Amino acid sequence: MEKDNQVGIGKFALQLVLDFSDETDAANKNHSNSNYDFCIGKTGAMDLKKVVSAIETASKRNQIIKEDLYRETHALYHAILEAIQGVTRGQSQLGEIMRTVGLRFAVVRGKPYKNKAEGEWLAVALYGTIGAPIKGLEHETVGLGINHI
Amino acid sequence: MEKDNQVGIGKFALQLVLDFSDETDAANKNHSNSNYDFCIGKTGAMDLKKVVSAIETASKRNQIIKEDLYRETHALYHAILEAIQGVTRGQSQLGEIMRTVGLRFAVVRGKPYKNKAEGEWLAVALYGTIGAPIKGLEHETVGLGINHI
Amino acid sequence: MEKDNQVGIGKFALQLVLDFSDETDAANKNHSNSNYDFCIGKTGAMDLKKVVSAIETASKRNQIIKEDLYRETHALYHAILEAIQGVTRGQSQLGEIMRTVGLRFAVVRGKPYKNKAEGEWLAVALYGTIGAPIKGLEHETVGLGINHI
Amino acid sequence: MEKDNQVGIGKFALQLVLDFSDETDAANKNHSNSNYDFCIGKTGAMDLKKVVSAIETASKRNQIIKEDLYRETHALYHAILEAIQGVTRGQSQLGEIMRTVGLRFAVVRGKPYKNKAEGEWLAVALYGTIGAPIKGLEHETVGLGINHI
Amino acid sequence: MEKDNQVGIGKFALQLVLDFSDETDAANKNHSNSNYDFCIGKTGAMDLKKVVSAIETASKRNQIIKEDLYRETHALYHAILEAIQGVTRGQSQLGEIMRTVGLRFAVVRGKPYKNKAEGEWLAVALYGTIGAPIKGLEHETVGLGINHI
Amino acid sequence: MEKDNQVGIGKFALQLVLDFSDETDAANKNHSNSNYDFCIGKTGAMDLKKVVSAIETASKRNQIIKEDLYRETHALYHAILEAIQGVTRGQSQLGEIMRTVGLRFAVVRGKPYKNKAEGEWLAVALYGTIGAPIKGLEHETVGLGINHI
Repeated sequence: MEKDNQVGIGKFALQLVLDFSDETDAANKNHSNSNYDFCIGKTGAMDLKKVVSAIETASKRNQIIKEDLYRETHALYHAILEAIQGVTRGQSQLGEIMRTVGLRFAVVRGKPYKNKAEGEWLAVALYGTIGAPIKGLEHETVGLGINHI
Repeated sequence: MEKDNQVGIGKFALQLVLDFSDETDAANKNHSNSNYDFCIGKTGAMDLKKVVSAIETASKRNQIIKEDLYRETHALYHAILEAIQGVTRGQSQLGEIMRTVGLRFAVVRGKPYKNKAEGEWLAVALYGTIGAPIKGLEHETVGLGINHI
Repeated sequence: MEKDNQVGIGKFALQLVLDFSDETDAANKNHSNSNYDFCIGKTGAMDLKKVVSAIETASKRNQIIKEDLYRETHALYHAILEAIQGVTRGQSQLGEIMRTVGLRFAVVRGKPYKNKAEGEWLAVALYGTIGAPIKGLEHETVGLGINHI
Repeated sequence: MEKDNQVGIGKFALQLVLDFSDETDAANKNHSNSNYDFCIGKTGAMDLKKVVSAIETASKRNQIIKEDLYRETHALYHAILEAIQGVTRGQSQLGEIMRTVGLRFAVVRGKPYKNKAEGEWLAVALYGTIGAPIKGLEHETVGLGINHI
Repeated sequence: MEKDNQVGIGKFALQLVLDFSDETDAANKNHSNSNYDFCIGKTGAMDLKKVVSAIETASKRNQIIKEDLYRETHALYHAILEAIQGVTRGQSQLGEIMRTVGLRFAVVRGKPYKNKAEGEWLAVALYGTIGAPIKGLEHETVGLGINHI
Repeated sequence: MEKDNQVGIGKFALQLVLDFSDETDAANKNHSNSNYDFCIGKTGAMDLKKVVSAIETASKRNQIIKEDLYRETHALYHAILEAIQGVTRGQSQLGEIMRTVGLRFAVVRGKPYKNKAEGEWLAVALYGTIGAPIKGLEHETVGLGINHI
């Protein structure tokens, strides 16, 4: 029998990164009996392309998306860019304007709508810190991107 | 004796809006023994200025910020704009591009850094839905803005 | 027997709006033996939401997308916004910054990739004029948005 | 005998709005023996289109640009938009995000380059306040746009 | 006797890049009896500055603009940036956000308005693909920038 | 006896960079009897992070902000980014889109409001040239950022 997805795919992704930031195993334990597929990971960079790349690689390696289908890469890519907008708040730049991020990410795939014709969707959640490239000169940041797949 | 703020001010604000979206009372119960001051509320609009206004009004009414001090209004305003960037992902517009939001917000004020000289900071968290002005044609969205005060 | 789509979906959409701007019937004649589904139309406004709305309405009325499926509305909406970026070049605003557009639009749906697993995609092409709200004080503008559906 | 323009057209425009903000007549006295043509004015609004419109109207009335030539309107319009970017710092919006401006503007036309083949250029300078729509809750803001004409 | 420019300068530039993408010679044949001056070329990069540079170099080498006049470089530069907005749709970035382009460009110069006092204008059209730096993971993209010169 | 700050902190910062651009010593002489603390400097780059870094370093070395307090670095950083918006007018990029700047900067700290509870504020003013990386192919540019501290 299929379980119902009682929690939105975005909220589920956010809770994953918030739990994950405390303790990695907890994330896997608490959330593994969901109907959603997901993967979690970490990335730190002064370089947005490393953030994009880390999330894409993890998503393909964990088979959240099919590596050889452009439509799935396209869906994931735009969800990542939207999540980055939340993290960078206005300018999708890091090192170019002297800032760096340390992020946890979650990529979630599943059917969040009751109407099954709505099909599968992707959520990318990011949570961590952003700031000067000096330890401690930073504050928290979050982002969420959602796309149909 | 002062309790320690074990949770970051941004994460605390995010958890408030995520809990709040399930059940309002829960938010108040679970989080009221924190060292942070906070208020929570709802706003729905095709109009960003209503979102800004709802958050500012709630923050002043709940004495999270001092109404007559421009520096506090200025700090809150920029935190709100940053949170809106996450919600709108690229264009801080709603009705102008035919979309609407239904949001819960949390405004949190406190001292998130161990070094007390860092003083007070503000976090504004937003969580809800964004989409076409037709019920159901929408997905989740989130935003977080943080500023010194 | 299925014909091959020899022309990219974006180029096909652009040719539709460029032909259309000369003579409406020509557009239908020259392009109707394609494998793509499409609709064409006109919109003029100082208001982006009227542009979005005109394209969405035409796409639903001509059954390019299914009205009651959010995933299809979502795909079209983001393709429209991307096309608008080309038209407005930097700020997705019209009347707010004292300018107006007169546009022809084409919405095209089909399978542009040889690998059939790539499925269906949407292209939105816009071509027309942008300028001051005074006849003649305007120049041409174009935009193209593409999304998987 | 033609005087040399010893001061850049942008600096000249900025000095006009900075002087003007102290005392209007001073602006005219101190700067009237320059080789540049200019006009100065005031505008206050929650609406960018009123700012654009006030500057365009003053420029045409004072014959800084020719009303019926699109190329001159086009040059001025883009210089105004660039100056507005400085004033609004990231989002060319006022009332939409609950803020208002009170601005002095200067529009300057002339030949700022020694090589006469460089021809005429336009500078638009803005200086004033931006903030909440409540007196006193505001700070200073400036913008400068420059374009060939 | 001077031929009339029956086609807008933007449409002419777009048709050049669309034809060019099929067969280079065709572009030169079909369009060479126009009143517009133009050049066409190709550029592929993960780097916007290579795109800007390729178009500027081709325009100077083909004497579409005068190399030593800043006003002409300035006009071309802003037309290129506007065309890039259409290609990148929201963020003028390529490699920084892990994407690459393969583009054909056309730069057209001439008098598109009946009123000869409107003088010369420039159009920059771009057409090609944008996507992941992996062959096939890409879709079409277009951009058009127009400026007075 | 405390002197009154008759001039706004933003105007004061602008006058510093405008005077400075003529003659460095003049800047120090004319402005040193103000109630504001300030530092001035120069920076030239195709790289925004060098601009950010030059201003931060000068501000810390001249004790305009406290190096080890994140809240002061945070306030300065956002004021710098706002000033850069004015300089770059729409895209906070330099070398990425083939342009370079030569800038004078002023960082001013003080109490610009009569109500002493408004406390200290920071202004960052930038003035100089922006253009192609070729001498002479450039025009003036300005930016101003203001933040509470």
